[in-house]
Amino acid sequence: MQEPEPTSVRHLSRAESLDLLQHRAYVGRLGFIAEGHPMILPVTYAASKDAVVFCTRPGTKLSAVGAGAEVVFQVGENSAEYRSGLSVIVRGTAREITDAGRLDGLRWGALRSWAVPATEHWVEISIDEISGRMIQGQ
Amino acid sequence: MQEPEPTSVRHLSRAESLDLLQHRAYVGRLGFIAEGHPMILPVTYAASKDAVVFCTRPGTKLSAVGAGAEVVFQVGENSAEYRSGLSVIVRGTAREITDAGRLDGLRWGALRSWAVPATEHWVEISIDEISGRMIQGQ
Repeated sequence: MQEPEPTSVRHLSRAESLDLLQHRAYVGRLGFIAEGHPMILPVTYAASKDAVVFCTRPGTKLSAVGAGAEVVFQVGENSAEYRSGLSVIVRGTAREITDAGRLDGLRWGALRSWAVPATEHWVEISIDEISGRMIQGQ
Repeated sequence: MQEPEPTSVRHLSRAESLDLLQHRAYVGRLGFIAEGHPMILPVTYAASKDAVVFCTRPGTKLSAVGAGAEVVFQVGENSAEYRSGLSVIVRGTAREITDAGRLDGLRWGALRSWAVPATEHWVEISIDEISGRMIQGQ
């Protein structure tokens, strides 16, 4: 049985959640299922109103999600001093970006990988659902 | 095919990973599979050498993981200025803590939920595997 949400949790509107996703974070966490196991990987990203884009190197992360996997993407910030936090969750489908024109646009720089500038692959997550909550500590 | 890890990624030792988990973060992300879907939820936590403990309210999070689910738990910190980041991933099994003596010890305060001080349930994740990496940007 699900209890009612306590009053110290405020649900963010879609606009508030998108604003946090687009403008207040630069590292998010990708959650997916790899060979039956849950997995979380942090990635630097950029977001539009419709999609989250991140870049990665070939390997586990890309092969697990690049072909149309269901994923979640989480960003958030927290304050220990005030016992408060914000968290936004996106649900969507991940696909590797292969369009040459889009890739040229993406490669200009701001979003390139911190670790692997030479071997980028780009993955896009559709924002099928987005929700956010703010916890104000008591 | 998995490419070799780029040199700008350093794998942390078990001791370094445990240190980061225990002393340098207070909010982590729980990754699990709920009814076949990947899920990420941020939780405040404390960690020993053997386990991560967090508290939660009854509901989706607890019911999805409290009975012995395979989970991942991720903590990390990032610096946009230096394009660098640290991330630690724990793999383990989550179980609700029901031992009355342990619960009395846990309820003293520091780890109680920011949102729901009255309805805590406590969940423990065994640290079956722990790994960490540091990315130093280029």
